[in-house]
Amino acid sequence: MLGSPVFSCFVFYSTLLVLKMYIIAIITGQVRLRKKAFTNVEDAMRHGGEQFCREDPYVERCRRAHLNDLENILPFLFLGAIYSLTEPSLAIARGHFLIFFLGRVVHSVAYLFALKAPTRSLAYTVAQVPCVSMVVQILIAVASFA
Amino acid sequence: MLGSPVFSCFVFYSTLLVLKMYIIAIITGQVRLRKKAFTNVEDAMRHGGEQFCREDPYVERCRRAHLNDLENILPFLFLGAIYSLTEPSLAIARGHFLIFFLGRVVHSVAYLFALKAPTRSLAYTVAQVPCVSMVVQILIAVASFA
Amino acid sequence: MLGSPVFSCFVFYSTLLVLKMYIIAIITGQVRLRKKAFTNVEDAMRHGGEQFCREDPYVERCRRAHLNDLENILPFLFLGAIYSLTEPSLAIARGHFLIFFLGRVVHSVAYLFALKAPTRSLAYTVAQVPCVSMVVQILIAVASFA
Repeated sequence: MLGSPVFSCFVFYSTLLVLKMYIIAIITGQVRLRKKAFTNVEDAMRHGGEQFCREDPYVERCRRAHLNDLENILPFLFLGAIYSLTEPSLAIARGHFLIFFLGRVVHSVAYLFALKAPTRSLAYTVAQVPCVSMVVQILIAVASFA
Repeated sequence: MLGSPVFSCFVFYSTLLVLKMYIIAIITGQVRLRKKAFTNVEDAMRHGGEQFCREDPYVERCRRAHLNDLENILPFLFLGAIYSLTEPSLAIARGHFLIFFLGRVVHSVAYLFALKAPTRSLAYTVAQVPCVSMVVQILIAVASFA
Repeated sequence: MLGSPVFSCFVFYSTLLVLKMYIIAIITGQVRLRKKAFTNVEDAMRHGGEQFCREDPYVERCRRAHLNDLENILPFLFLGAIYSLTEPSLAIARGHFLIFFLGRVVHSVAYLFALKAPTRSLAYTVAQVPCVSMVVQILIAVASFA
């Protein structure tokens, strides 16, 4: 399967997006340490005391960015893999993956830097276009088997 | 792989469930706009002012429905694909996928319309039955390689 | 694909981790019932009245453990499958899967029992090592196709 250019192209962008998600997790952890804002009392105890078991607005922002990634990037890992099996042309498939990839990178940047609305929503919407396109193409490809 | 009836059947129901998740995301966004209840201050500013950076009970309900989907539908995307590789009979496999699919659709409806308990929990439990069945069958199929 | 020892080994540990996630969901539900702490008013009504629509610290802890699993185990289901396609040696691949598996089991135990910090963070970090290693190996394997 990794010999297929379409599938490999999908894997390349998907893996970068997984890495992007890991980076958001690391940022969240660093912000927690720097701002001394922990959700778990055992972490707060280790870093100065129970009073640091508290919420921080920027930590919450990081967590929302991460959750939005779970909602969107994880389904893409499925859709992209299946779509690759429908034998699309490489150029069109790469277009799908690239638009999603760029949309999600801009989404994360817009979230973490609180860019002026509607930057983030626009990035989300742009990234959803190839996803819905893949949903439709997959359903057409397998509808006869259901 | 899309030539395999079992795998195609799995892909069909899975893709519909991904679409269902996308629909919950769209509903959440629409409720936020209609009720003017935003999590991010930049969104609130664009839609009338900082005072609309606030929680709304129905938005929270939509978000819980979505999170529950992440917890259940995403693992199904994995389990169903692997289970399809264990060469089950088409009728039994379709039964697994269909029960899960219907269970999760009822779960979403029960969540969004706040149907009387235990409708939602029952739908969740029904949908988990084929999942646990697939877990067992997969473990039996690969246990010798671990 | 299930005939490949590396892929089967991946499937074995992955499926156990999915089962682990299901167990956390069941624990969360049981704690909700025992402590009478429900998020949805329809559930509270069924179990004694509206006053039981309330938060409980231990329920929140279970939910955080579950969410952390979504953030880490679900991407592993993707990375492990793709990594298996890169034809790694069985011994090295099993090492990757086993370290991740053990790290995530310790993470869940540390979370649910609120073990002294940094047990949980350490388990998280240990489990991320094979993930980042797989990311790198996958990117090397497919970089030429992007």
